Amino acid sequence: MRYPKRLTRVLRAGMVLIALTLIDASAAGEKVDGVAAPIYGIKIPEGYRDWRVISAGNVGAPVNDVRVKLGNDIAIKAFRDDKLPFPDGTIIARLAYKQITSQENNKALGRVPSFVAGPATNLEFMIKDSKKYAASGGWGFGQFTNGKPDSETVHKACFGCHALASRDFVFTHYSP
Amino acid sequence: MRYPKRLTRVLRAGMVLIALTLIDASAAGEKVDGVAAPIYGIKIPEGYRDWRVISAGNVGAPVNDVRVKLGNDIAIKAFRDDKLPFPDGTIIARLAYKQITSQENNKALGRVPSFVAGPATNLEFMIKDSKKYAASGGWGFGQFTNGKPDSETVHKACFGCHALASRDFVFTHYSP
Repeated sequence: MRYPKRLTRVLRAGMVLIALTLIDASAAGEKVDGVAAPIYGIKIPEGYRDWRVISAGNVGAPVNDVRVKLGNDIAIKAFRDDKLPFPDGTIIARLAYKQITSQENNKALGRVPSFVAGPATNLEFMIKDSKKYAASGGWGFGQFTNGKPDSETVHKACFGCHALASRDFVFTHYSP
Repeated sequence: MRYPKRLTRVLRAGMVLIALTLIDASAAGEKVDGVAAPIYGIKIPEGYRDWRVISAGNVGAPVNDVRVKLGNDIAIKAFRDDKLPFPDGTIIARLAYKQITSQENNKALGRVPSFVAGPATNLEFMIKDSKKYAASGGWGFGQFTNGKPDSETVHKACFGCHALASRDFVFTHYSP
């Protein structure tokens, strides 16, 4: 059976769309529902999972996570140039994962315990826009779980905590 | 005072060379002395510090580090596509840093302990070349400290340990 030309075109366009969606999902890491986080109106920035590393770390009990900080090009340049304050357009991403033990690693390492990243917990972004976010030191904050923004209560806590950081509201230092 | 034309040209070439060296150093993270590691003959791959993240983790006492795994484009594609064995050309980089406590983070987090990356400890690479490294599962290994290859004894241990990994000699799993 042959489809009419118009239908074939629609089907083909649909398949391209599906393919693009799959490519995007595999590149982006987190599923994104496109809803903006409360207070600051931040959405998950496209392609953040492909950004370069600023540094990594982990938080102990009761959080017990493994975390990686990524930066867009403006962020990476600012960190490498030791430029403060961070320029407008800087975006810092904090990816976090449940810290788990790797039996496979431990088998190889003997009595040295090894901890690796398990399932993703949540995802945070801070975006510098000195005009838009003048009331919060020039930074907007967003936290997402399973691709969906977290509550307003969560977002109310961001700035108070980051105000304790000595380098333009940023805790993370660049690792060589 | 004007320099002769030939000298000006030499000076200019010298300045370009210095500039390129500085750019390279800031991009590459580690100073690179260009000497190949024993056994496998691996050098620090240019631009590895700009590669994308595979995952992160940490190793407990007595190592106490924070570690990040980066991959070149071939590696990232293979991990995302769940492709095994890894194709030739795959390079996985393991960056490691002394795990330190951040007083600044702890001030903000209260009683939740936070650990961050301190000074770099050493740098490891594994490179897939199924012909060249046929005797070691298709992988070549290199470990570097302060940009210089570590000893032959260190390199003798790489393959035996990675032979315990179930996924084509690779321990690391991709984090979304």
